[in-house]
Amino acid sequence: MPRITSVEVVDVRFPTSLTSDGSDAMNKDGDHSAAYVILHTDDPGLAGHGFTFTIGRGNDLCAAAAAQRGEPLVGRDVDALCADLGGIYRELQSDSQLRWLGPDKGVIHLALAAVMNAVWDLAARRAGVPLWRLLAEMSPEQLVDAADLRYLADVLTPEQAVALLAGQEGGRKQRIEQLEASGYPCYTTSAGWLGYSDAKLRRLCEEAVASGYKHVKLKVGANLADDIRRCGIAREVIGADGNLMIDANQVWEVPQAIEWVRALARFEPLWIEEPTSPDDILGHAAIRKAVAPIGVATGEHGMNRVLFKQLFQAGAIDYCQLDAARLGSVNEVLAVYLLAAKFGVPVCPHAGGVGLCELVQHLAVFDYVAVSGSLDRRVTEYVDHLHEHFVEPCVVRNGAYVLPTAPGYSAEMHRESLATYIYPDGTYWASRALVEPVP
Amino acid sequence: MPRITSVEVVDVRFPTSLTSDGSDAMNKDGDHSAAYVILHTDDPGLAGHGFTFTIGRGNDLCAAAAAQRGEPLVGRDVDALCADLGGIYRELQSDSQLRWLGPDKGVIHLALAAVMNAVWDLAARRAGVPLWRLLAEMSPEQLVDAADLRYLADVLTPEQAVALLAGQEGGRKQRIEQLEASGYPCYTTSAGWLGYSDAKLRRLCEEAVASGYKHVKLKVGANLADDIRRCGIAREVIGADGNLMIDANQVWEVPQAIEWVRALARFEPLWIEEPTSPDDILGHAAIRKAVAPIGVATGEHGMNRVLFKQLFQAGAIDYCQLDAARLGSVNEVLAVYLLAAKFGVPVCPHAGGVGLCELVQHLAVFDYVAVSGSLDRRVTEYVDHLHEHFVEPCVVRNGAYVLPTAPGYSAEMHRESLATYIYPDGTYWASRALVEPVP
Repeated sequence: MPRITSVEVVDVRFPTSLTSDGSDAMNKDGDHSAAYVILHTDDPGLAGHGFTFTIGRGNDLCAAAAAQRGEPLVGRDVDALCADLGGIYRELQSDSQLRWLGPDKGVIHLALAAVMNAVWDLAARRAGVPLWRLLAEMSPEQLVDAADLRYLADVLTPEQAVALLAGQEGGRKQRIEQLEASGYPCYTTSAGWLGYSDAKLRRLCEEAVASGYKHVKLKVGANLADDIRRCGIAREVIGADGNLMIDANQVWEVPQAIEWVRALARFEPLWIEEPTSPDDILGHAAIRKAVAPIGVATGEHGMNRVLFKQLFQAGAIDYCQLDAARLGSVNEVLAVYLLAAKFGVPVCPHAGGVGLCELVQHLAVFDYVAVSGSLDRRVTEYVDHLHEHFVEPCVVRNGAYVLPTAPGYSAEMHRESLATYIYPDGTYWASRALVEPVP
Repeated sequence: MPRITSVEVVDVRFPTSLTSDGSDAMNKDGDHSAAYVILHTDDPGLAGHGFTFTIGRGNDLCAAAAAQRGEPLVGRDVDALCADLGGIYRELQSDSQLRWLGPDKGVIHLALAAVMNAVWDLAARRAGVPLWRLLAEMSPEQLVDAADLRYLADVLTPEQAVALLAGQEGGRKQRIEQLEASGYPCYTTSAGWLGYSDAKLRRLCEEAVASGYKHVKLKVGANLADDIRRCGIAREVIGADGNLMIDANQVWEVPQAIEWVRALARFEPLWIEEPTSPDDILGHAAIRKAVAPIGVATGEHGMNRVLFKQLFQAGAIDYCQLDAARLGSVNEVLAVYLLAAKFGVPVCPHAGGVGLCELVQHLAVFDYVAVSGSLDRRVTEYVDHLHEHFVEPCVVRNGAYVLPTAPGYSAEMHRESLATYIYPDGTYWASRALVEPVP
């Protein structure tokens, strides 16, 4: 009967701004970072690892918030915790004083994600299975009890959610076998960061096609002439049958988004991602209507399930890009998958950053196996960087995630990576501070 | 030419949970708190004071975030800063790494509010006028430049905003004189906290009527039988002509809100406040349709201008209750007042907590003088506690705020109050820690 003995939280930052990896029209110089949580137990072979993702400054705020969020876990019996993953989520989430700082958004919610991601990792390790399988072996009732359905009753009651999951129960085994054979389809964003030169863009697009990808995504929105030229290069390389996605990272007003996307329509993008404020449900609905048949995608900044409920209600998006480290962990992710299935909107999770690919591969597999039962129009993001810091990095082959087999949520980072990149005292940052002012 | 020499940030908490002041169905034990910012200058007689409001735990996170947000202000020339209040807001707000933690919501946005509230206080002090007058003497073009209109262009362009303000310019002087004579109407929430007994509720309602209030607000949502009994008491005391408002503090699902409010309809509430998640625009629209003619009010947890834009677009609310310490200071408050005027929705600012009354009195006066030009269906919240900690506390007479005359935003707290209630080292908390564990 192991117990949680301590909650360790570290602020780890990778200096990605040096190479423009991850650069886009809104975020020119992000240092991909994690507020990283380790739940230690009195069993030396058992710990839970989780994190939320940020792009640098303020990661310390998320770490401090995660330390507060995680405090009630100390001393808990691991098996009791794992037997009631809905209960512990509700307990941590409902701290009314911290709730005031959201509710369910911003730093305190990112911190809840970090802590509860570690709890889910711990639960899967304790069960000796990868997270996707832990979920795929839960009953509809258990899944619905774990899901955060608060404020969703006008569109999805717990009873309706159970019925939806029960309807897919029969095919779970067969779909698992299918994915074990073929993997879960993904697309690459590594080609199209805004800070890359045309030559680098062309080379990376060519490499993506050669690696088996059918989708390529470009960052747009800083300069229309550049966007036209870059979309032209990408379309030329991927050919008429390839899928081109474009991503504006929230830089536009609603009318401007419509105008700009229409100017890029001749390159036939599959979707325009984050055309405006992530909070603007009605704005996305207006853009979608105006730029059809180009799809509208958003979600990496989708703050919580209430926002997604309304995006679906308003018919605002064609693709839901939920984020595993921004939503309140698996508990809230479950709710969004259930809503998406009810409304028939495909979920194509956001990934990239640091560690997000490692997390979302589990979620996408679970969705296919137990929730939507469909791969139609579904493709999960993949970005090829920072995987070397993970003990069990995700594996992509022929444009598809290979199903993880190690127990847990694939969230554990190497101790050496932490020692190097902990901010500001890790060896990398400390030595950099000797030659230049650290940001 | 004074310069800002340092940004001091303190975490100050008042032990209001001991007396159930401020208790409601969601927040049973809040300790009203402020992440409090002082902009020191090299002129010993000049400083800017501002804060955001929280209810206890996590106030340290807001304080830490405010320290980061405020850093770029150190060394700035005060007059240059005050001459471009839109520019400094945009500069602080657009830090892309911190933006990732929102955008424009949660801890980083509360911290932006704290810092920019202090900047506005400084600007009004430097001009030697109360904040409402500083605003009322700005031209339409200056006000629109200061306002945060990003992501609003689909409903309000800067040109439209200038035209709206220009249309009210002629009557400014006369409306100021009118308010100087009569004050700005307010209502009291002090009577109806959920933790109060029936006898205390009755006595406080009687006192409110005797003091000249025409509106009384009760907290509801924990227990329907209790709510029916308490609404009965309040309606009996205030009579058929008095206005009764009810406030559920977000505890209901949408269908439950409709059912519960209908069960209280016989007490003819003027509005139901915060019936469900503050993020649920479409939910509020559905509730409003179902419970009419009872009005729907929300806004104290309204995270940013994009949310308010949609509340207006969707016809979701009858009363807009913006919060001076949750929105990104005067810059974003201006945007919401402009939107509200465009859509014809009255703004009745949220107040209470600690210091919110001091702030919103300025905003309400400015709205009447320069934006809406109307008092129709407008009444500002007033809660009678914690005013003793302010150097220039708000004054309410005959159910109306008396116009402040001292320079600034009325945000300055007494040094002795800070010394007593700074958390956890102030004399109050330190001595309490000697006899019991401090929360």
